[in-house]
Amino acid sequence: MALSVEKTSSGREYKVKDLSQADFGRLELELAEVEMPGLMACRTEFGPSQPFKGARISGSLHMTIQTAVLIETLTALGAEVRWCSCNIFSTQDHAAAAIARDSAAVFAWKGETLEEYWWCTERCLDWGVGGGPDLIVDDGGDATLLIHEGVKAEEEFEKSGKVPDPESTDNPEFKIVLTIIRDGLKTDASKYRKMKERLVGVSEETTTGVKRLYQMQESGTLLFPAINVNDSVTKSKFDNLYGCRHSLPDGLMRATDVMIAGKVAVVCGYGDVGKGCAAALKQAGARVIVTEIDPICALQALMEGIQILTLEDVVSEADIFVTTTGNKDTIKPQTDRWVFPETKTGIIVLAEGRLMNLGCATGHPSFVMSCSFTNQVIAQLELWNEKASGKYEKKVYVLPKHLDEKVAALHLGKLGARLTKLTKSQSDYISIPIEGPYKPAAYRY
Amino acid sequence: MALSVEKTSSGREYKVKDLSQADFGRLELELAEVEMPGLMACRTEFGPSQPFKGARISGSLHMTIQTAVLIETLTALGAEVRWCSCNIFSTQDHAAAAIARDSAAVFAWKGETLEEYWWCTERCLDWGVGGGPDLIVDDGGDATLLIHEGVKAEEEFEKSGKVPDPESTDNPEFKIVLTIIRDGLKTDASKYRKMKERLVGVSEETTTGVKRLYQMQESGTLLFPAINVNDSVTKSKFDNLYGCRHSLPDGLMRATDVMIAGKVAVVCGYGDVGKGCAAALKQAGARVIVTEIDPICALQALMEGIQILTLEDVVSEADIFVTTTGNKDTIKPQTDRWVFPETKTGIIVLAEGRLMNLGCATGHPSFVMSCSFTNQVIAQLELWNEKASGKYEKKVYVLPKHLDEKVAALHLGKLGARLTKLTKSQSDYISIPIEGPYKPAAYRY
Amino acid sequence: MALSVEKTSSGREYKVKDLSQADFGRLELELAEVEMPGLMACRTEFGPSQPFKGARISGSLHMTIQTAVLIETLTALGAEVRWCSCNIFSTQDHAAAAIARDSAAVFAWKGETLEEYWWCTERCLDWGVGGGPDLIVDDGGDATLLIHEGVKAEEEFEKSGKVPDPESTDNPEFKIVLTIIRDGLKTDASKYRKMKERLVGVSEETTTGVKRLYQMQESGTLLFPAINVNDSVTKSKFDNLYGCRHSLPDGLMRATDVMIAGKVAVVCGYGDVGKGCAAALKQAGARVIVTEIDPICALQALMEGIQILTLEDVVSEADIFVTTTGNKDTIKPQTDRWVFPETKTGIIVLAEGRLMNLGCATGHPSFVMSCSFTNQVIAQLELWNEKASGKYEKKVYVLPKHLDEKVAALHLGKLGARLTKLTKSQSDYISIPIEGPYKPAAYRY
Amino acid sequence: MALSVEKTSSGREYKVKDLSQADFGRLELELAEVEMPGLMACRTEFGPSQPFKGARISGSLHMTIQTAVLIETLTALGAEVRWCSCNIFSTQDHAAAAIARDSAAVFAWKGETLEEYWWCTERCLDWGVGGGPDLIVDDGGDATLLIHEGVKAEEEFEKSGKVPDPESTDNPEFKIVLTIIRDGLKTDASKYRKMKERLVGVSEETTTGVKRLYQMQESGTLLFPAINVNDSVTKSKFDNLYGCRHSLPDGLMRATDVMIAGKVAVVCGYGDVGKGCAAALKQAGARVIVTEIDPICALQALMEGIQILTLEDVVSEADIFVTTTGNKDTIKPQTDRWVFPETKTGIIVLAEGRLMNLGCATGHPSFVMSCSFTNQVIAQLELWNEKASGKYEKKVYVLPKHLDEKVAALHLGKLGARLTKLTKSQSDYISIPIEGPYKPAAYRY
Repeated sequence: MALSVEKTSSGREYKVKDLSQADFGRLELELAEVEMPGLMACRTEFGPSQPFKGARISGSLHMTIQTAVLIETLTALGAEVRWCSCNIFSTQDHAAAAIARDSAAVFAWKGETLEEYWWCTERCLDWGVGGGPDLIVDDGGDATLLIHEGVKAEEEFEKSGKVPDPESTDNPEFKIVLTIIRDGLKTDASKYRKMKERLVGVSEETTTGVKRLYQMQESGTLLFPAINVNDSVTKSKFDNLYGCRHSLPDGLMRATDVMIAGKVAVVCGYGDVGKGCAAALKQAGARVIVTEIDPICALQALMEGIQILTLEDVVSEADIFVTTTGNKDTIKPQTDRWVFPETKTGIIVLAEGRLMNLGCATGHPSFVMSCSFTNQVIAQLELWNEKASGKYEKKVYVLPKHLDEKVAALHLGKLGARLTKLTKSQSDYISIPIEGPYKPAAYRY
Repeated sequence: MALSVEKTSSGREYKVKDLSQADFGRLELELAEVEMPGLMACRTEFGPSQPFKGARISGSLHMTIQTAVLIETLTALGAEVRWCSCNIFSTQDHAAAAIARDSAAVFAWKGETLEEYWWCTERCLDWGVGGGPDLIVDDGGDATLLIHEGVKAEEEFEKSGKVPDPESTDNPEFKIVLTIIRDGLKTDASKYRKMKERLVGVSEETTTGVKRLYQMQESGTLLFPAINVNDSVTKSKFDNLYGCRHSLPDGLMRATDVMIAGKVAVVCGYGDVGKGCAAALKQAGARVIVTEIDPICALQALMEGIQILTLEDVVSEADIFVTTTGNKDTIKPQTDRWVFPETKTGIIVLAEGRLMNLGCATGHPSFVMSCSFTNQVIAQLELWNEKASGKYEKKVYVLPKHLDEKVAALHLGKLGARLTKLTKSQSDYISIPIEGPYKPAAYRY
Repeated sequence: MALSVEKTSSGREYKVKDLSQADFGRLELELAEVEMPGLMACRTEFGPSQPFKGARISGSLHMTIQTAVLIETLTALGAEVRWCSCNIFSTQDHAAAAIARDSAAVFAWKGETLEEYWWCTERCLDWGVGGGPDLIVDDGGDATLLIHEGVKAEEEFEKSGKVPDPESTDNPEFKIVLTIIRDGLKTDASKYRKMKERLVGVSEETTTGVKRLYQMQESGTLLFPAINVNDSVTKSKFDNLYGCRHSLPDGLMRATDVMIAGKVAVVCGYGDVGKGCAAALKQAGARVIVTEIDPICALQALMEGIQILTLEDVVSEADIFVTTTGNKDTIKPQTDRWVFPETKTGIIVLAEGRLMNLGCATGHPSFVMSCSFTNQVIAQLELWNEKASGKYEKKVYVLPKHLDEKVAALHLGKLGARLTKLTKSQSDYISIPIEGPYKPAAYRY
Repeated sequence: MALSVEKTSSGREYKVKDLSQADFGRLELELAEVEMPGLMACRTEFGPSQPFKGARISGSLHMTIQTAVLIETLTALGAEVRWCSCNIFSTQDHAAAAIARDSAAVFAWKGETLEEYWWCTERCLDWGVGGGPDLIVDDGGDATLLIHEGVKAEEEFEKSGKVPDPESTDNPEFKIVLTIIRDGLKTDASKYRKMKERLVGVSEETTTGVKRLYQMQESGTLLFPAINVNDSVTKSKFDNLYGCRHSLPDGLMRATDVMIAGKVAVVCGYGDVGKGCAAALKQAGARVIVTEIDPICALQALMEGIQILTLEDVVSEADIFVTTTGNKDTIKPQTDRWVFPETKTGIIVLAEGRLMNLGCATGHPSFVMSCSFTNQVIAQLELWNEKASGKYEKKVYVLPKHLDEKVAALHLGKLGARLTKLTKSQSDYISIPIEGPYKPAAYRY
């Protein structure tokens, strides 16, 4: 590829759309900091002791303004950071510019080709002589995937001399991954293994990435410890329940001019995303109907006065459909637009099928992302602090309860909350430590 | 002024930004029709009998897509229509284009100068030989003002030979009005008096216009009957309570990235606008505090669990401020933006002072406007049908209760509602007519 | 009748069930005072100046604990008071005992016969030599009725010598009224006319009584000024909307063991009572359906996400029915209990037809009654203060807006509210007096 | 003790207050059945196959109307049942009478002495020759305790000849337990061991009992399998969240006359009980403030617009306090009544400290208990069906997810819900079995 890395005056590498957008990015970064109290509290609490001193962190996660605040929290704690986006469209170029100019090596722009995307991922992991990163922040698992595939190829090459064959797969993106690895083998046939040796662990942001990690754990192929940030209470409830409750009306109003009050709205699925969407629609004055396969979630909806019906029951009566299931065939694909048959009735479908989560996520406000990203910081700290203790094996872990609680605690000040502290006597009486954890691991919140 | 009227191939006059936007306007008009069931129901119910046959209607009201649906409802009922906007910025040019091409004489574009604005208003009232309109739809009272000032000037001119002196006023806009009238006197010294003679009445859309009308009624200078559409239940509740409840989160999210949940939001005033804003904020998870001068409204807020404090009590603690009072000094003007003192705390002020209503109104969805505009159609019909009966004197009237109820009824079908009908025996028992009105005039809803 | 008036050691007359319950009554009175801040604030504000000094007040209104706090507010302001109940079952005997012992002449007990009831009413109006009361507090209009019928009979008797004939009516209760008047004529043929002469006015508590008053006003037979307390905002909203919202779940749970969450609840009528009931049921997790004849109220329900259907549509599906209409035939009478046809489905009907209001009213908490009764005190003060000014003619009046606002204001302190005060400059700017009234008379709240 | 067992004409043993109340009990049982659809659905689904044929079930659980429906569900499935209450005050005598007469051996009455209580428990476990029950339904663990202590004593007696010494403990209730066991040893020194041998397992209803079971599991002393019903989603959410949301306003209104709307209510703790209480208070119009030690629960409250403060912050301002923590010192004990200092301000404390849960539980409607008790039936069925499979060891188990889901499913029909069924293709796509379980074990709902 004809791409070339650029360097700042201080010598830090980058490749972004337009470095001159850095000032605009900086302004928005400062606005976002106000709404990301968890990250700012991390800087205050941990900054002085520089816990990440000497740590190299590579991140593959949407290069947005919010992510920029995460990156600068990591650097404020002493880390050296390289970053790429985990999606070819999600980079905010002014955010990338500000970070590239001021804080970390960034390889990301809005509208990358797939080849460019993987080139960026490779750059993000490339710390020059001496191997790769100490820690990875991953979203969707592409950085993790590249290392695993790289190690596999190097071992096969050492054993049999065979190099990966891009033509062995029909998946156009995986072709590119294999090409990169094949080409790398020519230069350094132990690059990914050296990377693996150095790597302390990864913290993974999303469901997709987490699913991959559990599959690798199950098949015994996971090469380093992983922390599943996705299932922290302070991540999952915020991204799903509170985030979607916030973002849904916004999305609906921007997409259409429809008055929600008085309409019949169908929410397919009453998990956390569905609960958030249903709450938002109900509060805006819609009559909400839910479809569910799970009788427990159905019963929860009923307890909130929400009717449970099937899609067939409601399709002719409802005005708004929201699918939250990630499943297929919940609604026919051709209905993701206004329909004007002769009857002049219309249907609105928001974010067909599996995309609802993403549709919402893009719209998540900084405060929601602050919860997710503070989990990332805490997870990275945990991996780094325990790197020598043997606490974390080559398995997937959720954050221990007391760290999940810590993420919450870091967000309370901004909201003016004053927490109660147990007395010694009370703590003894109910057998709960003064400093937490306050709930058993299986607690449902 | 160097402006010149243009004509369609069928000979209808217009002056718009760009007639080629008519197709785009038509598309959005069709989308809006689905959400304006009251207007569409008027077409179905009254269209066949062509009640406005022979009627000339002049309208001065924001030339938007929703207004376009109103205009085409008036023409569908047989009226001939001329239109201008009541605000120099509020015209949607594609809406104006579609109407100019297909339905009515339009003189409006986004970004008029004040001179252009009053030229448009004059064109809108100018029906050529034979005087002015039979009916006026007014918003803010500018069309009504021009006629009243014109008549006054003509009478003075007839009596004393004096013409209006634009230099007699400091108000730059009123200078223009006087200039137009002065120049008109040279051509036709009885134009406005002929207009007055023909005019059956005006229906007025907003508080400002209504206030002017009541002042003229009080001072005995009102020249024709006026219907106050603004205070219909189906207008005021929708524009204020339901409209703002719908529009506030939208406006807040577009303006800022702030997460509403968990924040302290102060709503200044708990009238209908305040009630709508407070409901929206509360439902989005904010802790709402209200400031009020009226103890009854304050008690209503308390009954909803909302704290009543003064601005001084909360200014240091709150995150979001919404002023709904139309009063001055509720919040200092310089706070209508994020404030970043050294403490890094921020304040958001939505739509300073008197603009909240307008800010919301712009964002009102079509369904809300359908309620307002169906009141306009019903009011115009009432004036026209009663033109010879003497029912309406030169006074200001609110729509009779049964017509207000009719507006509501026309919106029920779209929402799938099935109304109950009194039996004869029930009607007798509670002394309420089967066809309404169902409530006394002073009923508070 | 064999009833005889008793006297306290201080010589005050009474007839109650059991004076020894006075201590228990006093205890509950003290508890109620905490929840009746409006009445207590009246004592604080007006007590020192003794505005009712010299005034005789007769009251006919449920002799409950809350009414006892009203009575003692009137006496604390200087009035001399006589009281009876306006319903044969509604007296709380311990309340009557406490008042009889400590504060006022009381003639009331739970379970009066109709004869006893009217004997009590007569005693309540009987101030011995020198005629009747100066002021009447009436609930349902029975005290007012007795005087009007008495005056009519005396005038007829004077003119024609005819006395009322109890056999002239089929109404058993009216037979008793005529008997009392007939018997009275023998002793003093101008008793009621002397009463009328002295009487300054009446303040009426309820819809029924108010309706009678307006009928008398219309027919020109009203003998003295009347203030309609029923339609004060602070009375009607509290008795209907907030009162029923509070009392409904209570009544439903006491009457049945039904879980409200998950059930389908039908509310017949969406006026203030219906709005309160629907809100309570919705918030408890029911799916609420409303039946309505009024399209405006129907549209309001729709805007809250509530479905509008007819009774026929829902009768087979719904679990709970609440009728708020005061009309007949809304639901068949035999359904006011659980029904167990072979299908084992059940129906709950709360308070058949017109009784819903009363059913709720009985359960109203003291705070609600404090609002109603503070209106009574303010109305009585207004009548008394204006007795010589001619402000009030023989007509029916609602309380002027600023007094309605005052009632609200007197309840704010207890709820910790801090009202905002207009500055002089703000007051001028929006043309609203600093001390109110803050809204026009027709304002809908 | 001078108590003697009585027998019905069919020879079934019982000891209740008054068998003549059986008809009244039967009537209320029939009413309750309508609100306990889960249990009735069990009868319909499992009754025909008589799965409990040959099974002896002993139950120690509040002998109420709802429990009576549980008992008759067990007998309808073929079980033979003996029952006692798990609390000396909680028996409803008419429920006990109906069951004793018609369905099962009952030993329970309201107001037992502690001696009588344990005599009843002994009777409940005493199935005559051939040992004890096959299954136990336990609430609080007293039946389980008696067997464990009995076995321990028998083993010690066999080893050393020593008998339990009631004087060895200060706990007056445990003295009684030891006395019963000591006296039993004289008659049959292997009674409890024979019981243990026969016993298939226990299903435990509450936190307290579950806690004891986990302690025994940990110390290795648990003698038979146990199913923890308490932590089923369909049990815990209903008993805590939905049950308390329903019961709190009821309890508050019965206890006091306070208007909730407008008051400041403090809820100590925002777990499921606190969430239910806060929701109920908020919806009734209170301004709710929460105190919390757990930052995650605190953040959840904030996301609902609820302020987080400490008790010290609010004690002077709040009107209502609800403690849900089970902890001590949350509020001083002397405040569980109205307080009337000279300021005339009052405090209401509902159910001091640890009793809130119980206070609420007593008031739980039948529908809530239907969820709990259907878990019991399903748990008993699971134990009985798997008695020979070795699936359950001497450990504590929660119900497998698919059975928890089944409990929910059995309640949907009554509420008119129509569940969606996955197609084969959808099931494959998202890797979720068509018949469930639909969620991973750790899912938080």
